[in-house]
Amino acid sequence: MKDKQFAVIGLGRFGTSLISELSRMGYDVLAIDNDENTVNAAIEIAAHAVQMDATDEQALKSIGIRNFDVVVVSIGEHIQASIMTTLILNELGVKKVVAKAQNTMHGKVLERIGARVIYPERDMAVKLARSMVSNNILDQIELSPDYSIMEMMAPNSFAGKSLVDIGVRNKLGVTVLAVRRGGDIIVAPTAAQLINEGDVLVALGKNEKLQRLIELE
Amino acid sequence: MKDKQFAVIGLGRFGTSLISELSRMGYDVLAIDNDENTVNAAIEIAAHAVQMDATDEQALKSIGIRNFDVVVVSIGEHIQASIMTTLILNELGVKKVVAKAQNTMHGKVLERIGARVIYPERDMAVKLARSMVSNNILDQIELSPDYSIMEMMAPNSFAGKSLVDIGVRNKLGVTVLAVRRGGDIIVAPTAAQLINEGDVLVALGKNEKLQRLIELE
Ligand SMILES: Nc1ncnc2c1ncn2[C@@H]1O[C@H](COP(=O)(O)OP(=O)(O)OP(=O)(O)O)[C@@H](O)[C@H]1O
Ligand SMILES: Nc1ncnc2c1ncn2[C@@H]1O[C@H](COP(=O)(O)OP(=O)(O)OP(=O)(O)O)[C@@H](O)[C@H]1O
Ligand SMILES: [Ca+2]
Ligand SMILES: [Ca+2]
Ligand SMILES: [Ca+2]
Ligand SMILES: [Ca+2]
Repeated sequence: MKDKQFAVIGLGRFGTSLISELSRMGYDVLAIDNDENTVNAAIEIAAHAVQMDATDEQALKSIGIRNFDVVVVSIGEHIQASIMTTLILNELGVKKVVAKAQNTMHGKVLERIGARVIYPERDMAVKLARSMVSNNILDQIELSPDYSIMEMMAPNSFAGKSLVDIGVRNKLGVTVLAVRRGGDIIVAPTAAQLINEGDVLVALGKNEKLQRLIELE
Repeated sequence: MKDKQFAVIGLGRFGTSLISELSRMGYDVLAIDNDENTVNAAIEIAAHAVQMDATDEQALKSIGIRNFDVVVVSIGEHIQASIMTTLILNELGVKKVVAKAQNTMHGKVLERIGARVIYPERDMAVKLARSMVSNNILDQIELSPDYSIMEMMAPNSFAGKSLVDIGVRNKLGVTVLAVRRGGDIIVAPTAAQLINEGDVLVALGKNEKLQRLIELE
């Protein structure tokens, strides 16, 4: 087992997936929920599983919660329980608390209490919205408010042409960092690189330039 | 209003966030839920909102659902309603159906019916797990099961050295695609590029090599 110790409170879809992934990476995770069946099911994926009401300060203290490196509160719908739990963790001296918020107001309160706040449903919804508007965006990283890296389907009109003929850098103003062709990755392609139908481009540039590239047919 | 027509069925956190983002981008969205209060609240963010049971084929037909470009089914907990709705949309000839899955079995069924399946909670949990294990990963794109692009804090030991001195390509086996320094982006840096303390690296490589890079101090 690796050295960092994690605890996850609230075993909904998010909490459960988080535990699975951490366990898969070789980490020891303590799973906590107040529902008995949920805790029993968690024994299959977590190193340890405990049934308790996380708003019970004594119970959290008695399992030595402050010794964990990160405690994640993934109670979404029970906003009050989420806030109470986060507050107690903070008062018990847990160094790092990550808390899942249900909405902006909930998130603001959690932030004030000192948690790192995450909005899984909202973040994935924003990603889906962008990919729906343009069928071509597969994934993206925002480097700054102006610059992004986007993974996108190459426009059909690029097929059979080289990057220099297409004018990707000079006319379109973006840099193609890599080309994905089936399972192969061509890293840092030269200007002479030919694009095939079905290629995926990984491009870096200003958002407005990337937007224009995505809209090409 | 832009030309694509979207409908979102199931106004939980995911569905609601999706509608907000699409509306913000200037699209016309139809919001559907069988809960009256939920539909009334949606009128503030959606162009249109309708209360109906989405498992009622006649009701879906009567609002001309097949004319929408993309219909998103974001009913998570009611697995049966989610599956029924997706099947009906498919039979009514809706070209593109995106459906949110609760777990892998649910997802497999939705896929068979012809939907593009998404797992918002699971995907964000995997992302959080990786960032918890290493405080240094900021974002990532999976290009294939083996290759990724990662945005990460440069290890402290890199400060003051060039990429060739560090041996990023030859010793570590990854390609630095870009360096972010405050608001500036250095694209396709040369081997002579110096790394400063606080720089963010955008690196492409095999997952195992990237993992090793992240673990450097
Ligand atoms: N006070 C509490 N102590 C411990 N566990 C709790 C407490 N309150 C709620 N939980 C547990 O938290 C879990 C997740 O809560 P909930 O269903 O509200 O989250 P959610 O945001 O809908 O989850 P997801 O979208 O990830 O499925 C549930 O299994 C519930 O039993
Ligand atoms: N048959 C149906 N027709 C229309 N709407 C439905 C139907 N069944 C459920 N819904 C609606 O779907 C919405 C979302 O469902 P649910 O809460 O199960 O999803 P969820 O995955 O927990 O959402 P999230 O995690 O995004 O908050 C609810 O507002 C519910 O009223
Ligand atoms: Ca729930
Ligand atoms: Ca959810
Ligand atoms: Ca729900
Ligand atoms: Ca990403």
